[in-house]
Amino acid sequence: MMDSVDKFPIERVTEAGRKHVEDLVIKELPLTITLNNRELLTLLCSPADLEYLAVGFLFSEGLLQSKEEIEKITVDTQSGAAHVKRKDGTESVDESVSGWPVAKGCGGGTSFHSATDIKGQVRVSSPTTISPAEVFGLMREFLSRSQIHKETGGVHGAALCDSKEMLLFTSDIGRHNAIDKIFGECILRDIPIENRIIITSGRVSSEILLKVAKRGIPILISKSAPTDLGVRLANDLGVTLIGFVRGERMNIYANGWRVTTADK
Amino acid sequence: MMDSVDKFPIERVTEAGRKHVEDLVIKELPLTITLNNRELLTLLCSPADLEYLAVGFLFSEGLLQSKEEIEKITVDTQSGAAHVKRKDGTESVDESVSGWPVAKGCGGGTSFHSATDIKGQVRVSSPTTISPAEVFGLMREFLSRSQIHKETGGVHGAALCDSKEMLLFTSDIGRHNAIDKIFGECILRDIPIENRIIITSGRVSSEILLKVAKRGIPILISKSAPTDLGVRLANDLGVTLIGFVRGERMNIYANGWRVTTADK
Repeated sequence: MMDSVDKFPIERVTEAGRKHVEDLVIKELPLTITLNNRELLTLLCSPADLEYLAVGFLFSEGLLQSKEEIEKITVDTQSGAAHVKRKDGTESVDESVSGWPVAKGCGGGTSFHSATDIKGQVRVSSPTTISPAEVFGLMREFLSRSQIHKETGGVHGAALCDSKEMLLFTSDIGRHNAIDKIFGECILRDIPIENRIIITSGRVSSEILLKVAKRGIPILISKSAPTDLGVRLANDLGVTLIGFVRGERMNIYANGWRVTTADK
Repeated sequence: MMDSVDKFPIERVTEAGRKHVEDLVIKELPLTITLNNRELLTLLCSPADLEYLAVGFLFSEGLLQSKEEIEKITVDTQSGAAHVKRKDGTESVDESVSGWPVAKGCGGGTSFHSATDIKGQVRVSSPTTISPAEVFGLMREFLSRSQIHKETGGVHGAALCDSKEMLLFTSDIGRHNAIDKIFGECILRDIPIENRIIITSGRVSSEILLKVAKRGIPILISKSAPTDLGVRLANDLGVTLIGFVRGERMNIYANGWRVTTADK
């Protein structure tokens, strides 16, 4: 991930005084995502795994349904462009794309504005369970994977796991982007996500919860806190929501039946 | 700020076992901002100071230039709507509003996509200076003000200061929103921002830097890290950028001439 950071001359002020040093700064890339020649939006992201990000984003927004629909993906990191061409797409603006409700997302996330937005969203019914010890173990691994990015600050991690192990890990300056990168990788590499678990370092807002529920993920684990809408949606959509995982402690906000009782 | 949090029944897992308790969860409100009857976007925000947020957002996006342009502001927290009417505005869609580049922002921030976006942006030339001791003192106060929001996690703070004291403090689930709330309050309450300082808890991306530079703020202080584009823009636009302020330590990323040498 060294291409996600850059060296800058800075001045560091400490108890010992003021000193010119070199320091690592996280990179930020404006990435414009285009589907069938229609420019959809520009995300600010970390410049790695841009194919995964573009594809994950399009799935999250409902603009792609399967890998087979994709004819071609072209990514140009230099100019910050990701072009995705659907097999069914003509060169002109596609009907379903032009109907895409632009201008509502935050950091590329789907926006949830009212109860009508989640109508038709199927409840997650997976029987997957997890024990507190497994949650703590996965979070420990998650944090150790995040360690290398901590030096530069301000980067969000996301991971795909089953209850026993971490399968994929990625990071991005945006918490929405990090999760989309995970989903994009699953799609492009044919990695099943049924009955699997997502870990995020970031706050669980309604957007994040909806993004995860749409993919049928039964358990969402966060190092941070959820919002009230995140909790309500988790309840409504059948997602087990675990937050504030710190050491051997955690909060279960919704659908606690998937968390097997602690051994003591 | 009690209206920014809500009580939820959760299960807490600790070393002592698993227990049903009530916990505070931060609220999230989808707020749709309308200018002269044109719906601009829906932000996810904390449900406080929504007038400040709507006005600050419109200024940040260049859709309002002065308080005098505002004829009326209507905010409905229940339905999540903020309507702003400009004096010059007709009931139909206004020319400059319809030209607003939607779909590009993150959390309501202005998007910076290329060098052309900052063309015409005047360099900040304010002679304001600050000493390291003043930075550390302001950050201590900032953190103590943020304390009450820490309980629920995941809330960003923003403050307006001069080098001696904190003048305004606010918070929001979005770091862009928090800064827009500060600016909106300054505009509506006629609080001068010339030669003043902004503190943020959040990462300084290009969007945040540009938002602050547009208001002519000479010094931006963050508890967190900047991105490379944030640092580059700070250099280009004459903003003194200080990050990673922790105790008696900090990094100066750009325009260090406004930081008076440490006393030792």
